[in-house]
Amino acid sequence: MNDDRRPFQAYTARHFQWQCSDDGRVATITLNRPEKKNPLTFDSYAELRDLFLGLQRASDVRAVVITGAGGNFCSGGDVFEIIEPLTRMPAPELLRFTRMTGDLVKAIKRAPQPVIAALDGVCAGAGAMVALAADLRLGTPAARTAFLFTRVGLAGADMGACGLLPRVIGQGRAAELLFSGRAMTADEGAAWGFFNALHAPGELLAEAQAQARALADGPWFAHTMTKTMLNQEWAMGLEEIIESEAQAQAICMLTHDFKRAFDAFAAKQAPKFEGN
Amino acid sequence: MNDDRRPFQAYTARHFQWQCSDDGRVATITLNRPEKKNPLTFDSYAELRDLFLGLQRASDVRAVVITGAGGNFCSGGDVFEIIEPLTRMPAPELLRFTRMTGDLVKAIKRAPQPVIAALDGVCAGAGAMVALAADLRLGTPAARTAFLFTRVGLAGADMGACGLLPRVIGQGRAAELLFSGRAMTADEGAAWGFFNALHAPGELLAEAQAQARALADGPWFAHTMTKTMLNQEWAMGLEEIIESEAQAQAICMLTHDFKRAFDAFAAKQAPKFEGN
Amino acid sequence: MNDDRRPFQAYTARHFQWQCSDDGRVATITLNRPEKKNPLTFDSYAELRDLFLGLQRASDVRAVVITGAGGNFCSGGDVFEIIEPLTRMPAPELLRFTRMTGDLVKAIKRAPQPVIAALDGVCAGAGAMVALAADLRLGTPAARTAFLFTRVGLAGADMGACGLLPRVIGQGRAAELLFSGRAMTADEGAAWGFFNALHAPGELLAEAQAQARALADGPWFAHTMTKTMLNQEWAMGLEEIIESEAQAQAICMLTHDFKRAFDAFAAKQAPKFEGN
Repeated sequence: MNDDRRPFQAYTARHFQWQCSDDGRVATITLNRPEKKNPLTFDSYAELRDLFLGLQRASDVRAVVITGAGGNFCSGGDVFEIIEPLTRMPAPELLRFTRMTGDLVKAIKRAPQPVIAALDGVCAGAGAMVALAADLRLGTPAARTAFLFTRVGLAGADMGACGLLPRVIGQGRAAELLFSGRAMTADEGAAWGFFNALHAPGELLAEAQAQARALADGPWFAHTMTKTMLNQEWAMGLEEIIESEAQAQAICMLTHDFKRAFDAFAAKQAPKFEGN
Repeated sequence: MNDDRRPFQAYTARHFQWQCSDDGRVATITLNRPEKKNPLTFDSYAELRDLFLGLQRASDVRAVVITGAGGNFCSGGDVFEIIEPLTRMPAPELLRFTRMTGDLVKAIKRAPQPVIAALDGVCAGAGAMVALAADLRLGTPAARTAFLFTRVGLAGADMGACGLLPRVIGQGRAAELLFSGRAMTADEGAAWGFFNALHAPGELLAEAQAQARALADGPWFAHTMTKTMLNQEWAMGLEEIIESEAQAQAICMLTHDFKRAFDAFAAKQAPKFEGN
Repeated sequence: MNDDRRPFQAYTARHFQWQCSDDGRVATITLNRPEKKNPLTFDSYAELRDLFLGLQRASDVRAVVITGAGGNFCSGGDVFEIIEPLTRMPAPELLRFTRMTGDLVKAIKRAPQPVIAALDGVCAGAGAMVALAADLRLGTPAARTAFLFTRVGLAGADMGACGLLPRVIGQGRAAELLFSGRAMTADEGAAWGFFNALHAPGELLAEAQAQARALADGPWFAHTMTKTMLNQEWAMGLEEIIESEAQAQAICMLTHDFKRAFDAFAAKQAPKFEGN
């Protein structure tokens, strides 16, 4: 990745599509091997991880949409390109792989940009975990989300699933999905809080990008703080939660966006945020 | 606050209404600047915090209802009385303010009394956090709850929102509300577990007070233990949760109310609890 | 308990029914004092705890169903056989009792086998906690689940309820049930994520056993890891969750079941797992 003012707008992805809005603020990642329902490979895993790690120092990109081409989100780790080699690896190499996949979840969570997953059709295995790592999830009525690790003889404990999924849909429902590997329907996902909303397939990406645009044009620095705090208070007691947020919000009160909001209110205008 | 046997029954609030039942057991706080939809000010924040801190040593008040006058709950921090001064404060003073608002949430959570929020109309910003800090929430079909900090250029991380809200409605829905600042409808709030129930506006307060009365006349000491444990097990592992409750419940088994319940059962009567 | 290859298939329970499938993999526990709605006694508590502790070293049993005879699950601690003696006990003995009941929850959670509770009719007090300690819960439309400790003058903090219930149904709904002691209807339980599904009474047990069979014939070692991780990540931060699962899944990738799954996929067959 280069170092000019808008490095990520110029970024050329090798293993998926990367597209930025004209002002560089809203980026869209499209997993695009539609003939195989957009599986992940060792290479696309690593590139996604590096991309999200890089976004930690991005000055341009302010919100990210991640979606899949051809009516599906992602079929997970490719069976022949990933599963087969794993069945022959020694333990240290396996751990290197599982840490790499977990690093992708961490990188998505640690990136300051709000990440919106836009899901149609198949959303399975590692693909379901990428969706779960996003901050918001929009689906279509045809979206089918399966944490199907058990179907290939593995534990539901993959990339953080046993920790993340219960915090989104509750412990009992998460247990069922992770033990059985069955697909969660779109209606279940909406009722259980996995999806924030369902949209028609033709409107899904535009809706996700509109929400990303609204966030990108909002008080962006404050949004990055919201994301940080949403992800770091999982294992805190009440006292620590409250003190952490007192500090976080005091920092945000020193931004110009806070002043802009008050000035706009006093002038009976809509605020124009600049993210600083 | 004075020191007679029922100090809180005699309490005269300056920045809201405080009203106790004849026996002093059920207190009702009414935010009452209805012409401005009951905003909070520096003074009402501080008085609420001090009141809930004081309730830790109350021997009379056993349950608290908090509501708003004139068809709204609370519009949050007043824009001209709170927001404007904040835009001019240096960092240490800002931290003093955010800690004070967080102290209100802590004081509500640390008060031994179950707190029931009765919400109609607007419930916004710090008002939404007061509602969230309550143990139970009753709403009306017109209640609109907005964690709208982002609308004034701030983070959703305010008064513990990023820690409390996911534990009530799940991580995905909390993220949407805190990033967007949009109002949660009453139906959403009921479906997502924010509200325990919805009632007609004319019945809301009576219903909240009836529930508070039932709690106040129940095994009150045990209720205080329930509240304590519900709030202090957020970041505990399974072993610690179980040992903590073994100790907590053993203490409750030494109360007279436990014996009263058995005696009443054996005599085929309804138990009369005294809270000791 | 004896030490032959299938010790638990030969186990004879004294205070409830224990029945194993022909291959010993699926065990069914039936609480069977139907004339009193299957209450727990000091003896049945202790035997259940010891049984689940013993299941930690079982080589045969791979999934457990727990249900009740006669149209009810369990009425909780027997009033005359448990509650009455407790009202006369000194503090250290009370703590020994509450620790013993908590040990039952811990033993259910620490047993490697997935546990499915099949609930009809009354599910109350300690019975509700046994159900909550299970990994999956199936109910009938007539199931009524009450954490009714408050009704006998005690705290809702019993056997881990204040820690477990919010993680399943959310903090607000848990607070209502634990403060009021009221019964949660089957429809509420299904909508809130307490139940994974509702079935007709005549189909409940068969359905639970079919799900247990599917788990027992699946990648059993991996399932034990799923259960372990689902229960030990409650109080972990994101980093620890991801590293823990990287290690757990790397272990599972070394099992033969993982290889079997790939081989079956490559051969376009259904995998046959052996649990190793």
